[in-house]
Amino acid sequence: MAKIVIAKKVLEANDNIAARIRDRFREGGISAIDIMGSPGSGKTSVIERTIERLKDEIGIAVIGGDLATSLDADRLAKYDIPVVQINTGTCHLTAYMIEQGLEELDLDGVGLLIIENVGNLICPAGFDLGQDRKVLISSVPEGDDKPLKHPLMMRICQAILINKMDLINFVDFDTDKFKRDALNINPEVQFFEVSARIGEGIEDWTNWLRKQMSKDEIKS
Amino acid sequence: MAKIVIAKKVLEANDNIAARIRDRFREGGISAIDIMGSPGSGKTSVIERTIERLKDEIGIAVIGGDLATSLDADRLAKYDIPVVQINTGTCHLTAYMIEQGLEELDLDGVGLLIIENVGNLICPAGFDLGQDRKVLISSVPEGDDKPLKHPLMMRICQAILINKMDLINFVDFDTDKFKRDALNINPEVQFFEVSARIGEGIEDWTNWLRKQMSKDEIKS
Repeated sequence: MAKIVIAKKVLEANDNIAARIRDRFREGGISAIDIMGSPGSGKTSVIERTIERLKDEIGIAVIGGDLATSLDADRLAKYDIPVVQINTGTCHLTAYMIEQGLEELDLDGVGLLIIENVGNLICPAGFDLGQDRKVLISSVPEGDDKPLKHPLMMRICQAILINKMDLINFVDFDTDKFKRDALNINPEVQFFEVSARIGEGIEDWTNWLRKQMSKDEIKS
Repeated sequence: MAKIVIAKKVLEANDNIAARIRDRFREGGISAIDIMGSPGSGKTSVIERTIERLKDEIGIAVIGGDLATSLDADRLAKYDIPVVQINTGTCHLTAYMIEQGLEELDLDGVGLLIIENVGNLICPAGFDLGQDRKVLISSVPEGDDKPLKHPLMMRICQAILINKMDLINFVDFDTDKFKRDALNINPEVQFFEVSARIGEGIEDWTNWLRKQMSKDEIKS
């Protein structure tokens, strides 16, 4: 019982900070996306391809959450954009961590903030980070049962990238079933079939993202 | 500060229950393994192949942890062995949940209890479930950076099954690097290269498991 009360207080405190972050993003004309997915689903690769497609038209910064290392942030360093690494020590990012990360980030000229969450399909779904949209990377080798097994994750995402489509012929993955089960939970969710490794399908995703961002109050 | 104290108390309470479970297993002559891994790494498939190889020589029961569904337990029902599904609502199993699960399980004639943990590389590593050994399923599409990114998981496992080896030619995965990084953290850990989907490499794993179990006080 005591545990439940504490959990609720933690989430309330998180939501308060997230609202503060969201105000700050709106004032600064920044769109923010929270990229979530299993360990090894390809979050960093998707972010790499996204940066390559958009960096000439919009300023991009990244906050990367990782349990203990800076491996992913190191991969992003080559793009010469502001990157902050947060070692969470836990299985998800919180709004407090994002607020701390923002202190270290030069947001001058930044229009898109990409948050790479910790590899985990459960806890990141429960924490508002002040983002404009949450995006799930789900890769075909993980199996097509993920929508049924992770309903909260499906419910809170605006887009799902079905990644590693280059492996579709070598695994048991029914794309129609995956989409049907996700749509049953979240009829509004958008799908993008991609292979971040070989760069396929990324344009549809970045076109959608660009269109969504134009609805936010981006600084011109 | 208050949060840290509570976390410590939760872990202490967990360890006390785990010790009680371990005593019960020793008294009953039961070996228990905790199978962990990312979502979609192939935990249930490995358990299926393991049951198929061992069920004629030893009584097997399964406790399956899942966020919200009974999909994995349903897959195991075909083996006509005792299976209990625990819907955790959280990102890992606890010793308390195992104790509750054991109440529902007929352990008469059971020599091997397989616990399938929630798909997650972080929190399950921190919770003792009274098991004799913890085993990680890591699949090659997840990438070879997992040992560096999840050091605690590497440290507490006695064995790592490198699964989905049938995909090794289609992904970037350096098996030697994976093993080297894991061995740097845990020099004693055993590796098994398998494909649970096509059934390859399972015999080496079950031979090792059989040998390990013979060191526990199994009922004859």
